[in-house]
Amino acid sequence: MLIVQKFGGSSVADKEKIFNVANRIGEQYEKGNKIVVVLSAQGNTTDILLKKANEINPDANKRELDMLLTTGEQQSVAFMSMALQKLGYPAISLNAAQVGIHSSSAYGKARIKKIDCNRIISELDKNNIVLIAGFQGINKFGDITTLGRGASDTTAVALAAVLSANFCEIYTDVDGIYSGDPRMIKHAKKIKEIGYDEMLELASLGANVLHNRSIEIAKKFNVALIVRSSISKESGTVVKGVSKLENTLIRGVAIDEDVARISIVGLEDKPGISFKIFSLMAKENITVDLIIQSIGRNTTKDISFAVDKSELKRTIEILEENKDYITYDYLKFEEKIAKLSIIGAGIASNTWFASKMFEALYRANVNIQMIASSEIKISVLIDIEDIVKAANAVHDKFLSENLIQE
Amino acid sequence: MLIVQKFGGSSVADKEKIFNVANRIGEQYEKGNKIVVVLSAQGNTTDILLKKANEINPDANKRELDMLLTTGEQQSVAFMSMALQKLGYPAISLNAAQVGIHSSSAYGKARIKKIDCNRIISELDKNNIVLIAGFQGINKFGDITTLGRGASDTTAVALAAVLSANFCEIYTDVDGIYSGDPRMIKHAKKIKEIGYDEMLELASLGANVLHNRSIEIAKKFNVALIVRSSISKESGTVVKGVSKLENTLIRGVAIDEDVARISIVGLEDKPGISFKIFSLMAKENITVDLIIQSIGRNTTKDISFAVDKSELKRTIEILEENKDYITYDYLKFEEKIAKLSIIGAGIASNTWFASKMFEALYRANVNIQMIASSEIKISVLIDIEDIVKAANAVHDKFLSENLIQE
Repeated sequence: MLIVQKFGGSSVADKEKIFNVANRIGEQYEKGNKIVVVLSAQGNTTDILLKKANEINPDANKRELDMLLTTGEQQSVAFMSMALQKLGYPAISLNAAQVGIHSSSAYGKARIKKIDCNRIISELDKNNIVLIAGFQGINKFGDITTLGRGASDTTAVALAAVLSANFCEIYTDVDGIYSGDPRMIKHAKKIKEIGYDEMLELASLGANVLHNRSIEIAKKFNVALIVRSSISKESGTVVKGVSKLENTLIRGVAIDEDVARISIVGLEDKPGISFKIFSLMAKENITVDLIIQSIGRNTTKDISFAVDKSELKRTIEILEENKDYITYDYLKFEEKIAKLSIIGAGIASNTWFASKMFEALYRANVNIQMIASSEIKISVLIDIEDIVKAANAVHDKFLSENLIQE
Repeated sequence: MLIVQKFGGSSVADKEKIFNVANRIGEQYEKGNKIVVVLSAQGNTTDILLKKANEINPDANKRELDMLLTTGEQQSVAFMSMALQKLGYPAISLNAAQVGIHSSSAYGKARIKKIDCNRIISELDKNNIVLIAGFQGINKFGDITTLGRGASDTTAVALAAVLSANFCEIYTDVDGIYSGDPRMIKHAKKIKEIGYDEMLELASLGANVLHNRSIEIAKKFNVALIVRSSISKESGTVVKGVSKLENTLIRGVAIDEDVARISIVGLEDKPGISFKIFSLMAKENITVDLIIQSIGRNTTKDISFAVDKSELKRTIEILEENKDYITYDYLKFEEKIAKLSIIGAGIASNTWFASKMFEALYRANVNIQMIASSEIKISVLIDIEDIVKAANAVHDKFLSENLIQE
């Protein structure tokens, strides 16, 4: 079998953990499998580098940031290669330029366009374990890009897709996907198997176990994912196949604290306004979420949406620079908020889900600032102070009524 | 003018030093010059990475070590680019793969074979300050090599050569080349100008200011070097042109503590023996120095030579593996030694230099273990305990007789 394995930064944070992972890799190799391993930077390496960069230049050029940050993953694969060789396994490390992981040029959030398989296949044919630096790509200029925080998952799944791997194991510090973040939701339950679409909602709503773009790629190329612990040998959660749309249970509760709300107040109430705003955002590669447009008052309307906290400053700058082009009265923003979501394939067709969620929030005395729903999720923005209380209240409500599917 | 500047690791060790260097670079840029800057890894980054690697695998594969160590220089250039941009200067960082610094495949001590100028020239044409990671190359497989410790100088001079730069400034933590290491030789004097050959001897004999391969390249392509301080604005030492062979003064005293002696005892006294030994050393990329062959006793002879301390273990292994091929009785080695040299273009033609050196050592009660001389140097191996005393005695002797040229 050909297996792609991905280990996160906390799994390779120090020498002992590196050897723990090297042993896990070795076990699969000894069974006669061909192994491709994707690694993140060790522990908090990326944060330390970001902090240093920020001290030098708080508005550091994204190209230079990517040049800097990608060294963390390159160090990880070199260390792991040395550890595997120490244990007697043949191994070789490769960075994105060496593999040929071609990406777009959007530094800091590039997208993978094409992966060359020749070098990897030739190393696998020499019976090498192939260690690949996650999170990075090269663009058409030969410059180094990063694929966004947490995108080592994306690297792993994309490699599994182009190499037609039998499956892709995502090793992490939890032993699977839970119906809520176990660090915050007291009664969270482990999910045995989940479809791509539901997993996609869980991920994009803040369940940090899998990067959402990795799930999109897995879905597109039908790559079976296994999310499991790098420490324990428990079976983990399998992500594959389609969601059952007729389902009448929810899959879990997700929390996203990395969100900010921005409102553009006093827009002219005429066609084309939202196009102007969101094409600007798209051009600047800012991901927006939870777009809500107020009903027009007199001749004006308001548009509110959510962005990542880290993008708030730049979003405001862009909107202010384009005030004359968009034409509005003023901007409002709020950083002390969090997003709470419930996910389940049957949500759109069953109003009871929304009703039960709002009831739980009401009983917990939590005020709802914004609401958005889709086919398979309902999200609310609430005060960040209330998030743990609110998430537990909602999760307990669905659990007590046996409405969470394992 | 087109200027290549090189700053060592201690010059970019922290934020403050990075900005100090960025200001120095900016000054030259503002005069309308085109600037290419080569940087080493920050402070003791390389040592820290080496230590971590050694903890994971003391016999780490050299390819993987190079993969690891080159991240230090990549971080330096990214940080410097951010600092320059913060100061308002346009800058871009490039690693060896991006420039196209093609090298041999001898990981850990690769040689530069060819440098592509297109990317650099195109960035200079956009008025960018171009920051290039020193110490690294890529081989024909696209894999990352390093050019040996201290080889960022080599990168800088090679770039100056291929770009036909007007000159190459080597910034360091001392303000020029001295007639002896000022940290050890009390009365050391700064040299204003020195020829390539004499500088080559000074460097290869342990004056750590310039990497000797960088001087070889500078000589070959006639690149004028300026060695100066990254802190002070003093004029430094110019390295260029030919040595005056009729000179009757010495240029300085050099110390090399990173040396070990090895003796092969009881070799057959027949032709081809030294060829066997040194072709083995060459094949394994071990640099040898101070080769001395004893006069044959009966039917056997001994060969002694010096290697870097770090190569001693491997040298012994190679010689032991090939004992039957070379045929000898046994090996002897000594690590607690150091090499003391005097350098000057007129040494070969004037026996007084050797005589004065040996007199000074005799008066200082220092025992000489081995002697070797060339056209422009005399080196002795002595007990490492005696080195500072011996170096000062020799330097003072020549100084007192007005035999050191400034």
